[in-house]
Amino acid sequence: MTKAERSKRPRRRRGAAQDTGADPAARRPDYTRLRNPFPPMPAFSDDRIAAMHEAALRVLEEQGVRILLPEARALFRTAGARVDDDSQMVFIGREIVAEALATAPASIPLRAGARHRDLVMEPGAMIFQPGAGAPHATDLERGRRPATAADFRELVQLTQAFDVLHILPPLVEPQDVPVHLRHYFTMEAQLTLSDKLPFVFSRGRGQVLDSFEMLAGFRGLSDEAFRAESHCFTIINTNSPRQIDVPMAQGLIDFARAGQVAIVTPFTLMGAMAPITVAGAVTLSHAEALAAIALSQLANPGAPVAYGTFTSNVDMKSGAPAFGTPEHFKASLAAGQMARLIGLPWRCASGSAANVNDAQAAHETQFALWGCLLAGATVSLHVAGWLEGGLTVSYEKLITDLEPLQMVAELCAATPADEAEIALDALAEIGPGGHFFGASHTMERYRTAFYQPLVADWSNFGTWQERGAQGASERATTIWKRVLEEDARPTIDPDRAEGLAAFIARRSEEGGAQPLN
Amino acid sequence: MTKAERSKRPRRRRGAAQDTGADPAARRPDYTRLRNPFPPMPAFSDDRIAAMHEAALRVLEEQGVRILLPEARALFRTAGARVDDDSQMVFIGREIVAEALATAPASIPLRAGARHRDLVMEPGAMIFQPGAGAPHATDLERGRRPATAADFRELVQLTQAFDVLHILPPLVEPQDVPVHLRHYFTMEAQLTLSDKLPFVFSRGRGQVLDSFEMLAGFRGLSDEAFRAESHCFTIINTNSPRQIDVPMAQGLIDFARAGQVAIVTPFTLMGAMAPITVAGAVTLSHAEALAAIALSQLANPGAPVAYGTFTSNVDMKSGAPAFGTPEHFKASLAAGQMARLIGLPWRCASGSAANVNDAQAAHETQFALWGCLLAGATVSLHVAGWLEGGLTVSYEKLITDLEPLQMVAELCAATPADEAEIALDALAEIGPGGHFFGASHTMERYRTAFYQPLVADWSNFGTWQERGAQGASERATTIWKRVLEEDARPTIDPDRAEGLAAFIARRSEEGGAQPLN
Repeated sequence: MTKAERSKRPRRRRGAAQDTGADPAARRPDYTRLRNPFPPMPAFSDDRIAAMHEAALRVLEEQGVRILLPEARALFRTAGARVDDDSQMVFIGREIVAEALATAPASIPLRAGARHRDLVMEPGAMIFQPGAGAPHATDLERGRRPATAADFRELVQLTQAFDVLHILPPLVEPQDVPVHLRHYFTMEAQLTLSDKLPFVFSRGRGQVLDSFEMLAGFRGLSDEAFRAESHCFTIINTNSPRQIDVPMAQGLIDFARAGQVAIVTPFTLMGAMAPITVAGAVTLSHAEALAAIALSQLANPGAPVAYGTFTSNVDMKSGAPAFGTPEHFKASLAAGQMARLIGLPWRCASGSAANVNDAQAAHETQFALWGCLLAGATVSLHVAGWLEGGLTVSYEKLITDLEPLQMVAELCAATPADEAEIALDALAEIGPGGHFFGASHTMERYRTAFYQPLVADWSNFGTWQERGAQGASERATTIWKRVLEEDARPTIDPDRAEGLAAFIARRSEEGGAQPLN
Repeated sequence: MTKAERSKRPRRRRGAAQDTGADPAARRPDYTRLRNPFPPMPAFSDDRIAAMHEAALRVLEEQGVRILLPEARALFRTAGARVDDDSQMVFIGREIVAEALATAPASIPLRAGARHRDLVMEPGAMIFQPGAGAPHATDLERGRRPATAADFRELVQLTQAFDVLHILPPLVEPQDVPVHLRHYFTMEAQLTLSDKLPFVFSRGRGQVLDSFEMLAGFRGLSDEAFRAESHCFTIINTNSPRQIDVPMAQGLIDFARAGQVAIVTPFTLMGAMAPITVAGAVTLSHAEALAAIALSQLANPGAPVAYGTFTSNVDMKSGAPAFGTPEHFKASLAAGQMARLIGLPWRCASGSAANVNDAQAAHETQFALWGCLLAGATVSLHVAGWLEGGLTVSYEKLITDLEPLQMVAELCAATPADEAEIALDALAEIGPGGHFFGASHTMERYRTAFYQPLVADWSNFGTWQERGAQGASERATTIWKRVLEEDARPTIDPDRAEGLAAFIARRSEEGGAQPLN
């Protein structure tokens, strides 16, 4: 390749999610809507999966679930479940579960802030979410700290900038915002800094209804239009083993009645809140998920609800949660089989228990990611940025975790192998001892042939040393800072923004909405 | 768990491959013989794979391969190929290829230095090899340096210590050993420090025959017994595009006639020595591999030979090789399909172009590993320790790369899901709000339930900081140093060792054997 040719090469700006069209010949991969290209891998035989499903039904019927919210228990009672209000135990018959699985939709449209951000949550889709839910944030410049509102906004902006991150999570907990106002802050940040599907915590009816109102107002939707599709999502964690707390049950009911998708996610660590075996933990998780799905359908048959689990193991010496382990992987595979058995879209998660963005963090996160991918997860959470088992989100790790995600996304499009690709003519053109750098076949394709890495540095050792011997995390610092500087927030309708701000001001003055625990 | 219970817990020594039986209840995973548990993933449809195979046959017939060794050309001529001794071009008819594929064995026994190290190289097997072939070594204590004999010996010891590393490679090039004596040194190190299958470079008949003699002598084998099975292996790289150099052709012939397995490996980087498309590069690699396999069978029909490729892309801006990219992954998948088409065991490789053992190095290496796994590679090379696209082997990276390998190995054994695993009784025993730490089901299993990490640190941030805030690489330094200290070399027959030393002394005095280039 001549120097002139090299200088003409389009440079893909690192960190910029979307080229502004500077070079029409530049490579423009589309990571916005992905379909899982991987063959599903089973953990267990079909008859074992059936046995686990049957065992879960027996757990619900014979052992029951403690449901703390009276309104929820009433729904189950009306449906024919045996309910004991003193012990708060609900014994759910399999016919209730079967009915719920029959009404829960297999395909859930997700309506975001722009059409190219819309998604469909259905078996076969592949949706990635970074973060999330961490009380701390960390980066190489400012160190580890209790997460702040500023961190939340920055992490939303970083999530917005990369197409392979499809939906917004509660990346970190902005601890400097009073709890009764926090949902206003987070919704405003999500809606004004991003056009991706926003998240709403199920922390009580007050916060949830506030959030729906903010969202419907900002999107300019009537009540009916709002309920017709999911414009946001929530995560419903059961309290393993076998308990659904008040705000979670409330969230299931409120989201179902508003037609907004709830992603059911028992958090079942083997040996701690769940049996120490993969089969036992997944059976327990499955039972709890079925109970939660049933509640959503009893509140509103046909309401969008996704199956899910967050099952991994603990270190039996210390009790510390572990992620990216073989047990985590196996549990993901088994959950995928359960999800395919019941026919619902489902959520899984990556993760790492590392304390710093090193080889352990990378290996654990990617290993867990492959568990999600081979399990056929519809939505994979915590795929970028997560450290310390979820206690901290790292800016640098969010960036370095993007590389395997983008590379996975590259595998989604079919690779051609037609005659032109097989290139018999090119093979004939270049003889023994030759090279393909100058072949016409190469020249026609080199601009767009290969994935351009975000973080990876492929320069030789000498060059790398001269440039400062930066590791991946250090380069990631440069990247996230540039992305924040570029500030690629979407264009926001100023009237809508004003309306939102006014709503928030009024509600704040009224005292906000305390979270329920 | 009580303090007394915790103190009774068996501690698995980090870095020790095998417990010496200190605790009969300790978890003892068997990583010595693995079968690939992953569902194979195609890159192309079957008809495209067939088209690529047909194209490869046409390359051999119409474009030919330049074969520099007259003895090899003669074998092809005798078989009916059209040979031009002036241009050294050989045009290989498809009937020669078909005959070779019919005689090449699908199952290749590998006889190592101890029975539990024996392997069978056949479709479905999963063999891992670290390194290899790097001119430099690096570690956090001594820094990056031209690799030495001492490095070679240490890296052999490290490879020996971990069951998930199955065969010995030429980990690094011991540059302080004269080239005409180097094969004596490396064979002696492999045979005395390890009982795993040793490697022999194909650097000319002199070195190869010396190596066979050393090996047969050390193993106490007659000529006939030696030839009956593979006691070593070699890698045969074609010189892409479409050339087989003298030592490589010599190696194919000599290994075939000695009944020792040759792993054929075109090194075809897209855009450089191969077309810039996956289909084109894999087609070229396939053609060259078929030519090499044909030569081995012409030399000795039925000789053990493995298919293989090392196909990735380059950075088109700089020409630098890249590994762990989507293109590398796709090429691996396609090569797996070609291997299954022809029915031979085959080799693939991981790799990284990172300059330091950071998140890039980990992500690239693991991503490439998954390409090998989902491609159904029989033998996966460079899966631990490789940096800088193969210019350096890192001690720390060898250790940190073991974690995903061991975790993959953990996925090979079927996970039970019988009634005891599903644990309905345990689920009934622990009610809402309870925990499974103390459940009898947990107590019966906790010692052996979970994979024990080699490198990963799961302690919380505070504890981790107190202990020195060590990253994975720093912990890896401690591990490799301890492994070297423990020196778990196998017991060696002193007579055999003496015989080997005597052979080496004599041959060295006779002038050794110069390598051919």
